[in-house]
Amino acid sequence: MAEDRAEDEAREEQDYRLDRALVDLVLDAVEAGDAARLTELLEPLHAADIADLLEQVGGADRRAFLRLWGRKIDGEILSEIDESIREEVIGALPREVLAEAVRDLDSDDVVDLIEDLQEPQQEAILDALDEADRAAVEQSLTYPEYSAGRLMQREVVTAPEHWTVGEAIDFLRAEDWLPDQFYHVILVDPRMHPVGYVTLGKLLSSRRDVALRTIIEDSFRTISVYQEEADVAYAFNQYHLISAPVVDDDDRLVGVITIDDAMSVLDEEHEEDILRLAGVGEESSLSDTVLETTRQRLPWLFVNLLTAILASGVIALFEGTIEQLVALAVLMPIVASMGGNAGTQTLTVAVRALATKSLTESNVWRVVRREAVVGLLNGAAFAVVMGLVAMVWFGEPHLGLVIAAAMVINLLVAALAGILVPLTLERLGADPALASGTFVTTVTDVVGFFAFLGLAAAVLL
Amino acid sequence: MAEDRAEDEAREEQDYRLDRALVDLVLDAVEAGDAARLTELLEPLHAADIADLLEQVGGADRRAFLRLWGRKIDGEILSEIDESIREEVIGALPREVLAEAVRDLDSDDVVDLIEDLQEPQQEAILDALDEADRAAVEQSLTYPEYSAGRLMQREVVTAPEHWTVGEAIDFLRAEDWLPDQFYHVILVDPRMHPVGYVTLGKLLSSRRDVALRTIIEDSFRTISVYQEEADVAYAFNQYHLISAPVVDDDDRLVGVITIDDAMSVLDEEHEEDILRLAGVGEESSLSDTVLETTRQRLPWLFVNLLTAILASGVIALFEGTIEQLVALAVLMPIVASMGGNAGTQTLTVAVRALATKSLTESNVWRVVRREAVVGLLNGAAFAVVMGLVAMVWFGEPHLGLVIAAAMVINLLVAALAGILVPLTLERLGADPALASGTFVTTVTDVVGFFAFLGLAAAVLL
Repeated sequence: MAEDRAEDEAREEQDYRLDRALVDLVLDAVEAGDAARLTELLEPLHAADIADLLEQVGGADRRAFLRLWGRKIDGEILSEIDESIREEVIGALPREVLAEAVRDLDSDDVVDLIEDLQEPQQEAILDALDEADRAAVEQSLTYPEYSAGRLMQREVVTAPEHWTVGEAIDFLRAEDWLPDQFYHVILVDPRMHPVGYVTLGKLLSSRRDVALRTIIEDSFRTISVYQEEADVAYAFNQYHLISAPVVDDDDRLVGVITIDDAMSVLDEEHEEDILRLAGVGEESSLSDTVLETTRQRLPWLFVNLLTAILASGVIALFEGTIEQLVALAVLMPIVASMGGNAGTQTLTVAVRALATKSLTESNVWRVVRREAVVGLLNGAAFAVVMGLVAMVWFGEPHLGLVIAAAMVINLLVAALAGILVPLTLERLGADPALASGTFVTTVTDVVGFFAFLGLAAAVLL
Repeated sequence: MAEDRAEDEAREEQDYRLDRALVDLVLDAVEAGDAARLTELLEPLHAADIADLLEQVGGADRRAFLRLWGRKIDGEILSEIDESIREEVIGALPREVLAEAVRDLDSDDVVDLIEDLQEPQQEAILDALDEADRAAVEQSLTYPEYSAGRLMQREVVTAPEHWTVGEAIDFLRAEDWLPDQFYHVILVDPRMHPVGYVTLGKLLSSRRDVALRTIIEDSFRTISVYQEEADVAYAFNQYHLISAPVVDDDDRLVGVITIDDAMSVLDEEHEEDILRLAGVGEESSLSDTVLETTRQRLPWLFVNLLTAILASGVIALFEGTIEQLVALAVLMPIVASMGGNAGTQTLTVAVRALATKSLTESNVWRVVRREAVVGLLNGAAFAVVMGLVAMVWFGEPHLGLVIAAAMVINLLVAALAGILVPLTLERLGADPALASGTFVTTVTDVVGFFAFLGLAAAVLL
């Protein structure tokens, strides 16, 4: 009983994080070279958790682990392994283990596994597949990266549009090649054009003599094989799709995408956005090496250095002014910092709104106007606060007026830059998350310093 | 033929954004008071797109739209409408329209619809439900916000564990209350404990005499009704779940969560993270009013003002130093800016790693060490660059050395703050995304100014 309760509580507080005690036991077993113990420890784990474990241990431990247990790695674990260590893991596996592992996978998982590998590793995996699977995978690889064609699985369950429920069920019972997961039977015309689909739930709950055509779903939509995967994920989330048929240029059915793959894409797209907004290479991962990480972060820091030097150039224009009133040097970072923050707020909302397609041509001017007014209101609020602070701090009323005016100017400019920069990038076909932050803070730094020091030079001296 | 091709191309380029021309036609029909035309225009749209349209038009247009077409709004459209305008829309609908609309919804959709409404609106909707549905919704509302209990639907398809495929199919054919979407039949013991599940695909492809018990899925996991919804979404993504039974404290089945709801939660969680990192209230939306938006953004700007004043206080300590060498005022923002950027990079990676559970006790020290080394390497790289720039710019070798040393110090501190601040917040039970950015840039501003000006005071004067 007591054990039951402890178990219950453990489950309630489950946070799906790898348990440190378990990781330590695994590492002990690896160190002791005890493969049997390792198997026993890993047996209850999901493939995704074993992959996480491999990512979270250090490089040396991972190599020792693979030497001891590499032969037990199956396709499912392989396809869960993060890109950052995938080549390393695949390289450590004996060829026949790799061959065995990939043979169990659906075509979409094989594509996902090999698309980022080097040529020789790709070849090794393709060689392991039988003719039909290899052809399917190679066909998928002809579609552009990040397209629906790469994401779809080619195993599709179809039925002629004139069939009845009974005919469909008899067909399903007779087939032995059905995919692991499928949620619809897709109705096709004689030229393989999808014309609708029936959920398995409807199929099961309808009488055998019901025509499939009469129980198709309203939600039916097809996806072009060239559609970008980010848009595919958006469509699944927006229209609550569970699976969607993929069609080629002639509207012929070539595959199907299921919601679990769309959910992974949605997750990756978000990750990309959030990392890009912070100026981090979107491929970054905790299992990257120090050098890889340094190399990923350096370019954006370098861009930031250039923009910071530009802002310093603006300050340098006013060296004489600062020499006469050093309080300006004390206060000027406040104006720049407030502008940078307000700009980042607007920018982030704009990038999200573009990603969720809620910022469109129909409402763009209303949104720009709203941001400008919000910038003015916040500018006015902080102008009052900071004006008073400056007056009290330095006992100089005009200094208060100058910082107040600079604050209003910079927060208005921040709002406009925050919305117009991502809109412009999007219009130019670039990712609005990428580099937006640097552009916006450059604008707010330059305008902030120029407005504050310029007004000071004009008013105070 | 030409038309076909044009359609093809339109589909290929489909980006699921609301078409501006359509929005204009809709607004024309609203202005003309032409309800029939409006119905004709909206007929081909998905409920989610109609909801988006309502969000994207201005407040006055929305009110006119609702006066003209409010009676046609159904439950599906209602549950797609963004929280920011939900009260407004519901308030504009006649009571009997509202009652009619909510009666079609599943219990989880009703819960989602009403949980954020004011008491009187909640009551109006609850009153519209029949006894059983009302009880189900009220029961769900007793679970904590953002828990699995709020997310689950209560309509569950179960079968006794000893049934065969044939018995299950006969049962499904006989029932007429089945949920719109279900993917598994959950096997339960006589005390309603879930013991496994069978996919509908397996059910359809197996012979009638096969025992259900023999075709259950490995992926089976139950979720506690108290589990946080963010963790539920994580589990669906991590373990590729399609649906999962929800159990109470006694392990009894009380509902089921399906992947489409988990996908929405994943999307919302990301949105929250990205907005929190930028210091924007996570409830923000483009259809908020100017005043709401100003109110949401003001608090974080205020916190930023305080920290900016703190950093200015550090500068004020060195007023005398700056007076003697005004180049310091020109260069000091560069050190602070580089620190802020490097800190934000590390911070973002850390927040994401915590969200994806890949930063755990097992690897935390390795990750901290890695970030510190990356900080040192980037610090060294930019120390060289910026040291040379400063030397050339101001013709003062010692100034170059001072800024180089300050750069190394600040980028190391930025890396440590970037990882330790979110870790500490998480340890304290706070959201690591919330406020992390402000803490980190405060540290990098203060340390940046102090290191640069302090070293300058010591070395140069």
